[in-house]
Amino acid sequence: MDNNKNRAVVRVPGTSANCGPGFDCLGLATTIYNYLDLTLLRNGKVIVESTGEGAENIPRGRRNLTWQAVRRILQEVKREDEFKGAIIRMRNNVPISRGLGSSSTAIVAGLVAANDILGSPLNRNDLLRLATELEGHPDNVAPALFGGFTVSVMNEGAVQTFSFLPRVKLKLIVAVPDFELSTRLARKVLPRSVSMHDAIFNVSRASMLIAALVEGREDLLPLAFDDALHQPYRKKLVPGMSAVFEAAKSAGALGAAISGAGSCLIAFTTLRSRLEEKIAAAMVEAFKAAGVKSKALILDVDKHGAQIMRR
Amino acid sequence: MDNNKNRAVVRVPGTSANCGPGFDCLGLATTIYNYLDLTLLRNGKVIVESTGEGAENIPRGRRNLTWQAVRRILQEVKREDEFKGAIIRMRNNVPISRGLGSSSTAIVAGLVAANDILGSPLNRNDLLRLATELEGHPDNVAPALFGGFTVSVMNEGAVQTFSFLPRVKLKLIVAVPDFELSTRLARKVLPRSVSMHDAIFNVSRASMLIAALVEGREDLLPLAFDDALHQPYRKKLVPGMSAVFEAAKSAGALGAAISGAGSCLIAFTTLRSRLEEKIAAAMVEAFKAAGVKSKALILDVDKHGAQIMRR
Repeated sequence: MDNNKNRAVVRVPGTSANCGPGFDCLGLATTIYNYLDLTLLRNGKVIVESTGEGAENIPRGRRNLTWQAVRRILQEVKREDEFKGAIIRMRNNVPISRGLGSSSTAIVAGLVAANDILGSPLNRNDLLRLATELEGHPDNVAPALFGGFTVSVMNEGAVQTFSFLPRVKLKLIVAVPDFELSTRLARKVLPRSVSMHDAIFNVSRASMLIAALVEGREDLLPLAFDDALHQPYRKKLVPGMSAVFEAAKSAGALGAAISGAGSCLIAFTTLRSRLEEKIAAAMVEAFKAAGVKSKALILDVDKHGAQIMRR
Repeated sequence: MDNNKNRAVVRVPGTSANCGPGFDCLGLATTIYNYLDLTLLRNGKVIVESTGEGAENIPRGRRNLTWQAVRRILQEVKREDEFKGAIIRMRNNVPISRGLGSSSTAIVAGLVAANDILGSPLNRNDLLRLATELEGHPDNVAPALFGGFTVSVMNEGAVQTFSFLPRVKLKLIVAVPDFELSTRLARKVLPRSVSMHDAIFNVSRASMLIAALVEGREDLLPLAFDDALHQPYRKKLVPGMSAVFEAAKSAGALGAAISGAGSCLIAFTTLRSRLEEKIAAAMVEAFKAAGVKSKALILDVDKHGAQIMRR
């Protein structure tokens, strides 16, 4: 037990946005976690220590994303004169620039930890608003905060999010290739207009996906992970994408999708099918055939979102 | 009790497709009904008698839609040599060519009644397939068959439908203008391509609508009925549309939409709000200000879909 009231430790899940048809609105939290041990300082020092994924590339000092989140909440509650610096200790398991929401974990961790230290002046919806503002979109910060699956709607700049736990017991298989992919590049390859047919394709499948997950209708899932709005354009950025999807489905997956803007690919199966190892091996093998080295993570849906750890 | 084994009476609900963002995939069944009293004949006579909505315009003889559905199922189960004609008695309450699925009721009624007479050789999914084939799309036939709300996905020509009863107790207010609108014309005004922004607008709102209805989250509904894919283009076909939507919302509706391809407009409220009369009056008044005479129907969500009546 640490009685330092200026310190909080939080755990934040990595996330996978889009889930196929739910482009720019659907996301899920998964059981791979980044940890933040935050101490707010009266003085103006910002000290960043990180271990694990991407440790060598994480900005130190005031450019650090977690510090920016901490500073944002201090401004929001008008206590930036009281705490001018922080010690930020990160332990990261979420691969960076792979479409697993690592930057969102840094933002959400900073907000949740600082909010706790400050006596929780903000509720989760306030934190969602700040996190969306810092990240630019809610797709990853929403599931990182709330856990489970999230549906987010942007309305005149404001975000509204619904979070739910699926009634289908899912296992997630994430193939992590050994190359990074910038979200900016993955956005750039998208067209500004799409056919009405493709729009309806996604509207119907996203609707079916939500309905099937919420109501536990596993039989309806095999149709529901397909996408026509973003993945066809991003295929060229992830060598082997279609082959990995096919390999996952041939090995028994219900469906497969790009995780966020990539480079990870994610496949979905059920806990009781016990097919996750087989699917993982098939995905890594298909990536290899396309000349891409990868590793597979077998994960569950995180149910809790960002959590304050016992100190 | 009628012991005539060649006779069946069915009740089929009118339906409202799209519900705003769920263009070409979402539909609901409502508590306005058409009735069919069907007798299969060994001889080749097709006798059509109809009363109620559109009675004067319903095709007699072999061009009649219900007869075409009856003949389709007789072909499907290879009994078209046994029954070559029918007496079709219809009592219709669903206004025609107004976006309330009247043609779907004629098809579904014929299929369900004939299937009953034939000893139910086909299940509901078989009937859905035949009905979708006859109607050209599943948007109205699916809720007419299953009741409640339906999400339908077309996949390589086959249809898959999920039906559910919302956990929000809805009241539906339908403003029925005194002009018809052909679905063909309402399709013709739609563009072949749309902006990615508008596609995402609908994907996110359709997802939110399904989630909010299935989980009973009334607080999330006010955002969830908006559409960017079809209604903006159909506005010019329904004078006063935007004003009627605004009037409904100002009177307390959660949202409003074109019913199917129009001309009806539908608003949504909750049972406990007790606002349905007020919303109905506001919608009729707003139509009137745009020079359109209309009447309002206050309806519920039908929970049963097509039903065989006791004989």
